[in-house]
Amino acid sequence: MADPRFFSNRGPIPLGKLAGICGATLSGGADPARLIRDVAPLDAAGADDLSFLDNSRYLPAFRATRAGACLVAAKFVRHAPAGTALLVSEQPYRGYALAAQALYPPPPVQAGVHARALVEATARLGLGCEVGPGAVIGAGAEIGARCRIGANSVVGSNVVLGNDCLIGANVTLSHCRIGERVTLHPGVRIGQDGFGFAPDPSGHLKVPQLGRVLIGDDCEIGANTTIDRGAGPDTVIGNGTWIDNLVQIGHNVQIGRCCIIVAQVGIAGSARLGDFVAVGGQAGVGGHLSIGSGVQISAQAGVITNLRPGDKVGGSPAVPVREFLRQAGIIRRLGKQKGDSE
Amino acid sequence: MADPRFFSNRGPIPLGKLAGICGATLSGGADPARLIRDVAPLDAAGADDLSFLDNSRYLPAFRATRAGACLVAAKFVRHAPAGTALLVSEQPYRGYALAAQALYPPPPVQAGVHARALVEATARLGLGCEVGPGAVIGAGAEIGARCRIGANSVVGSNVVLGNDCLIGANVTLSHCRIGERVTLHPGVRIGQDGFGFAPDPSGHLKVPQLGRVLIGDDCEIGANTTIDRGAGPDTVIGNGTWIDNLVQIGHNVQIGRCCIIVAQVGIAGSARLGDFVAVGGQAGVGGHLSIGSGVQISAQAGVITNLRPGDKVGGSPAVPVREFLRQAGIIRRLGKQKGDSE
Amino acid sequence: MADPRFFSNRGPIPLGKLAGICGATLSGGADPARLIRDVAPLDAAGADDLSFLDNSRYLPAFRATRAGACLVAAKFVRHAPAGTALLVSEQPYRGYALAAQALYPPPPVQAGVHARALVEATARLGLGCEVGPGAVIGAGAEIGARCRIGANSVVGSNVVLGNDCLIGANVTLSHCRIGERVTLHPGVRIGQDGFGFAPDPSGHLKVPQLGRVLIGDDCEIGANTTIDRGAGPDTVIGNGTWIDNLVQIGHNVQIGRCCIIVAQVGIAGSARLGDFVAVGGQAGVGGHLSIGSGVQISAQAGVITNLRPGDKVGGSPAVPVREFLRQAGIIRRLGKQKGDSE
Repeated sequence: MADPRFFSNRGPIPLGKLAGICGATLSGGADPARLIRDVAPLDAAGADDLSFLDNSRYLPAFRATRAGACLVAAKFVRHAPAGTALLVSEQPYRGYALAAQALYPPPPVQAGVHARALVEATARLGLGCEVGPGAVIGAGAEIGARCRIGANSVVGSNVVLGNDCLIGANVTLSHCRIGERVTLHPGVRIGQDGFGFAPDPSGHLKVPQLGRVLIGDDCEIGANTTIDRGAGPDTVIGNGTWIDNLVQIGHNVQIGRCCIIVAQVGIAGSARLGDFVAVGGQAGVGGHLSIGSGVQISAQAGVITNLRPGDKVGGSPAVPVREFLRQAGIIRRLGKQKGDSE
Repeated sequence: MADPRFFSNRGPIPLGKLAGICGATLSGGADPARLIRDVAPLDAAGADDLSFLDNSRYLPAFRATRAGACLVAAKFVRHAPAGTALLVSEQPYRGYALAAQALYPPPPVQAGVHARALVEATARLGLGCEVGPGAVIGAGAEIGARCRIGANSVVGSNVVLGNDCLIGANVTLSHCRIGERVTLHPGVRIGQDGFGFAPDPSGHLKVPQLGRVLIGDDCEIGANTTIDRGAGPDTVIGNGTWIDNLVQIGHNVQIGRCCIIVAQVGIAGSARLGDFVAVGGQAGVGGHLSIGSGVQISAQAGVITNLRPGDKVGGSPAVPVREFLRQAGIIRRLGKQKGDSE
Repeated sequence: MADPRFFSNRGPIPLGKLAGICGATLSGGADPARLIRDVAPLDAAGADDLSFLDNSRYLPAFRATRAGACLVAAKFVRHAPAGTALLVSEQPYRGYALAAQALYPPPPVQAGVHARALVEATARLGLGCEVGPGAVIGAGAEIGARCRIGANSVVGSNVVLGNDCLIGANVTLSHCRIGERVTLHPGVRIGQDGFGFAPDPSGHLKVPQLGRVLIGDDCEIGANTTIDRGAGPDTVIGNGTWIDNLVQIGHNVQIGRCCIIVAQVGIAGSARLGDFVAVGGQAGVGGHLSIGSGVQISAQAGVITNLRPGDKVGGSPAVPVREFLRQAGIIRRLGKQKGDSE
């Protein structure tokens, strides 16, 4: 069970209700009144726990599980052990996420501005906002309803946040408009100057960065990630895009909907990514490139060319993943050869 | 036009005055009294806007522009459309930067220590400093005139800042001396211990880090970048060097004048870079290396040898860029071959 | 000498006492009452300074040193110059660290909660803690004795810290238990949500992150490093492990004892590292991998397979270091060839 020091369990939930929450079908014979108290992995779950099977690799664990209930795709139902009630779903992991959200809902936003917060007179706060100690909300900022602004975070002048945003501690925002239901983890920096200058032997000259950062709805942005504002155009993050920790997004970058950007990725200035692009950890995308929707970029790849929708690339410089694997195989064999080459 | 929510336009400025600001020559026939209200790219500019042509790739856009005025090199003047007044300059982008600075000057430093800032009694603030809410300025710190210290930033004991520094929000400084006109973006960490220890099976032993960080004049340092103090010698950043976001500078590193260090670069301990070195994003420079002036290091390169002035390298391990491109070409072809190798 | 603006020298210390501190033997003839005032490298040390020889590369500097005293292994004693007292030790660098700690002890924790700190009523602080201005300590947190909590840091509800922890400024902690004598540098983020979601074309769905971060004793964690909490299992950092700046540790990662993780490394979710693993700067370790004790991973390597204890790997994808060097040599030669390939 999750440590009660940090997490509040809202169970038990009857199995029938939980099936509804998960969008799953309770398989015949299971008692809808059976109480589920927690979630757990297959090998650790007990009679009060809900588990899930999402990958056939875990079939042995599924066959041996003591979970009271398990989310499972129809095709695996026949492998279930006798004592486990089945919640049949085509998306068992999604079902698990929904069940876990129901059992451990995030702590509610506690309406109120802390006495040690500073909200400038001309800032507007929606109903039900929580502003933590030491937080600063600048003149003219507009914060939607039910937002949490974490302790010691700084929301710059005229910044706009939609409803239901969760801003962690020690975050800095400026020159940005942020949509609804956006989560920013601690230490995120959004809206500072892009890296724009006119090179000059007598000293590089600052080019004013006159754009903004626009972030859509339902985005999540990881700890200590930095997103620079545009130089003239805006830097744009589309609805539903998730960005991990320590990612760099340069000025004028445009990222579409529902992309997944893993930790320590760098997207250089003016690059454009379509929708549902996935970028593996520590990869880099060069400036001014156009990356089509659905592209998958492997971890540590270095993308230096435009990519068409659906391309899958790896390596640095990045090539199609199949070629990259073949390259790696050839190079690995070269490295194993002895003789003249040594 | 830049969003007036975040940017104040100080135009219009008469064309003649703007030419002076840009260091450009107004070409014959143009009316020096014509008013320019804004800057814009060639394809978006209208009759009140100043644009620029910096790269022959954009000649078609230049020929078709509706910009009221345009900065352009003498050699391209003949391609100008009829209605556009020309500001002739050998450095059109530099001119653009100057014009944009004049139309959108950065918000002035607002002298005053916020009631919720904490300035220790023995700290000294120059005239006209702005200290934001929640900022902490430690005992014995010396801050020059007209500096801005952002909200919730922490300036450690005895830190020295020159005049006209702009320190963003949530910055941490210790054990450092910083020059004049330095900009530090949010989340910068300067002066913490370097990663110095005596390895030991019974537990690594801390080696006291007894140096400082010295930062020259006119430097700009990006969000969440970290610069460790020296172990004994100092960590040194030269005048006019610009560092992007999320860069790591290890202890004892010495960087010369007017270098450009792009986001997520790592410079390992005791490396020395000359002047005007350019390091591409996510590249790494190994410890104790000597990198000559004018060296150019490609993005994601891994430098493990000393480099002579003017070297251009790429790849990991890094080699001369020409060799790297040839390597990449050969490997790319290997990856495309089918047959025995699969 | 270290800049007295930032460092307090507690010398002089008599040579005999210093030998005891260092665990070294004063070689015959040296006067144990001789006073040592400072530490310095071989080439800069004078009559009042202690230096050390740790690497035979520096034998020429040792022969020429003017240091008043020098830590040195027995085998190099015969190279010593006449005027230098010798402290013979099998671990001269460790001895140097101990001597430097004695001459420059870290500034003591100053017991007291600053008037501008916020300690929630139900938080418990051990004896002798220092809580800086703007720091926030949440409800139910338990802080051991003699801890320092830096200015504007945020310790979340119910977080547990052992005795003698040093938490820098602008740090954010939540959902974690931290051992004794742990140092966290500025901007560290520990305990935020891991990057866990159920991918979905209609919008990625958050998977509650129900684990914690557990950090052992005697760890040091660098500026702006991020450590996410587990998804269900905990994220674990073992005793004596040192992590440099801007490192990313994903959810569920388990790291053993006394590992060294250099700057900008990324360890993806659910990876497990044994004890005494060393990971070079900017390297990455893939998710769910198992890395044996004593493994050494080169800078910028990309590890995508399990590694056995003692393996030494480099490259991306990572291979044994010997093979990597051979690969690099072959590729380098290919890059130098001219002809058909161009």
